Amino acid sequence: MCHTDIHFAANDFGDTEYPVVPGHEIIGRVTSTGDDVTQFKKGDIVGVGCMVDSCRECHACEQGLEQYCLNGMVLTYNGHDLHDGSKTYGGYSESVTVSERFVVRVPEKLDTAAAAPLLCAGITTYSPLQHYGVKAGHKVGVVGMGGLGHMGIKFARAMGAEVTVFTRSENKVSEATKQGAHHVVVSTDDEQMADIAGKLDYVLDTVPVPHDINPYLNALTYDGIHIIVGLLQEAEPPIQGSNLIFNRRVLAGSLIGGLPETQEMLDFCADNDISCDIEILDIHNINDAFERVKKSDVKYRFVIDMESLKQ
Amino acid sequence: MCHTDIHFAANDFGDTEYPVVPGHEIIGRVTSTGDDVTQFKKGDIVGVGCMVDSCRECHACEQGLEQYCLNGMVLTYNGHDLHDGSKTYGGYSESVTVSERFVVRVPEKLDTAAAAPLLCAGITTYSPLQHYGVKAGHKVGVVGMGGLGHMGIKFARAMGAEVTVFTRSENKVSEATKQGAHHVVVSTDDEQMADIAGKLDYVLDTVPVPHDINPYLNALTYDGIHIIVGLLQEAEPPIQGSNLIFNRRVLAGSLIGGLPETQEMLDFCADNDISCDIEILDIHNINDAFERVKKSDVKYRFVIDMESLKQ
Repeated sequence: MCHTDIHFAANDFGDTEYPVVPGHEIIGRVTSTGDDVTQFKKGDIVGVGCMVDSCRECHACEQGLEQYCLNGMVLTYNGHDLHDGSKTYGGYSESVTVSERFVVRVPEKLDTAAAAPLLCAGITTYSPLQHYGVKAGHKVGVVGMGGLGHMGIKFARAMGAEVTVFTRSENKVSEATKQGAHHVVVSTDDEQMADIAGKLDYVLDTVPVPHDINPYLNALTYDGIHIIVGLLQEAEPPIQGSNLIFNRRVLAGSLIGGLPETQEMLDFCADNDISCDIEILDIHNINDAFERVKKSDVKYRFVIDMESLKQ
Repeated sequence: MCHTDIHFAANDFGDTEYPVVPGHEIIGRVTSTGDDVTQFKKGDIVGVGCMVDSCRECHACEQGLEQYCLNGMVLTYNGHDLHDGSKTYGGYSESVTVSERFVVRVPEKLDTAAAAPLLCAGITTYSPLQHYGVKAGHKVGVVGMGGLGHMGIKFARAMGAEVTVFTRSENKVSEATKQGAHHVVVSTDDEQMADIAGKLDYVLDTVPVPHDINPYLNALTYDGIHIIVGLLQEAEPPIQGSNLIFNRRVLAGSLIGGLPETQEMLDFCADNDISCDIEILDIHNINDAFERVKKSDVKYRFVIDMESLKQ
């Protein structure tokens, strides 16, 4: 369960077409394959993320960046099939039918439940860290410690970076350390913020609501990159231009990841013993879970056991 | 004369220490050299830009990025000498004494007057285009057509890019074309803005006052980069996060350029017959010129003939 599911269920974006079946972090077993399928066979454990199709022909698709398809990707739910225009329905269901290009293989080593959120929370944080070349020797800050943020910590650390988590509350310090942070900065503490100024190479900002980005820009050294993956609204209070100009800093956005990179991410997780911290959910408790997610009362992702639908 | 000179003269930044002698686009002839100077000799035509010193030891300085010196560069005027703390005075004077590291050679081919503004307006636009790898095949937008913007057009075109100038007024279209723009988009025309959406690889934004950046972000394709070089204030109205996230777009800042790159830029200008469009100024008319610059009534840079000081 992604917070996005709640937004679509509530028509928060204004474009929900009911009925809507959410779910874009799907893991399951192949039950049957079409005649032209070559990569998967019945019985394989596979995953489906946020997209189920794209034009496959544009420059972005050719590069395996289907999420930036110039003709628009087809979302796993609340989208429209490119062939017959029918609605797409997501993972809160017994089965889905997906073209093999948009299916990834789940390494055997991964726990299927803990791997499911990797298909959105995982790839969303892995992709920009990989794209911008995070590696040993780099200092990476992570802002926001929810489903995305805790994955950002794990990935940045596994890539060899020295990880600093920013948190507003003193009482999240131990949790950040437990997740793998080398340092924790309480962002409401002016002295701690002054100490980190100019120190970081990257900041991965997973906060999905308007917040002041300027203090984090100031935490970057010259040529540092602040990556937003959650903030779809306005950057309010506004970005101060001088915070970008004076140290050639960069404010970048990033959206999930393409299919080749999603497979790479799953393999990276298997190689580095990374998965999402989850709580298994009976689908009959979905409404309570929606309320808990709204209050950030989950560590860190609910995963619905679809067997519970049959009960 | 740079608009910054006017700001410092009027204490617009609040940190002017009077008396202040502006001028950071200086070209002149070497009159004498210190014993350890090896790169220049009496009689050479040389230039001095926005900086006259830096720590020379930090990571940025080691890379020839003195403008991002981790210990702070010394501005050509209204700065403080690192050795004795004395004030620095700029180019509105008969002579300046500068360490050779911060001096560049002016290629013989360049007109000295038309080359002077290259040391600020030129390098400020050349540096980010070069840093981000603009080359043949790229589509570059330029926003703002003043001293910086008209140089941006020339550089982007000389680097092989297809250049689109954005202007708010229909009557600047012919001037943009004259400066080398391949296309001109009137930014107040919704239809023209819709046509350019998703088309550009880079936008070089030279506007020094708050303006809406979102329409220009939308003009970028995925992985497109919007570079601000003039906006030191707040990006107001605010940046919409989705405009960065959905196409992995980048908002970047850039400040002048380092010494090696400034030399490279001058050589590039000589090789490509590029210089600044200027109006020669008698220093006795400086106050009138300040007023004209405030009204953007100059094409495109005033250059003071310092001989006029003696009259």
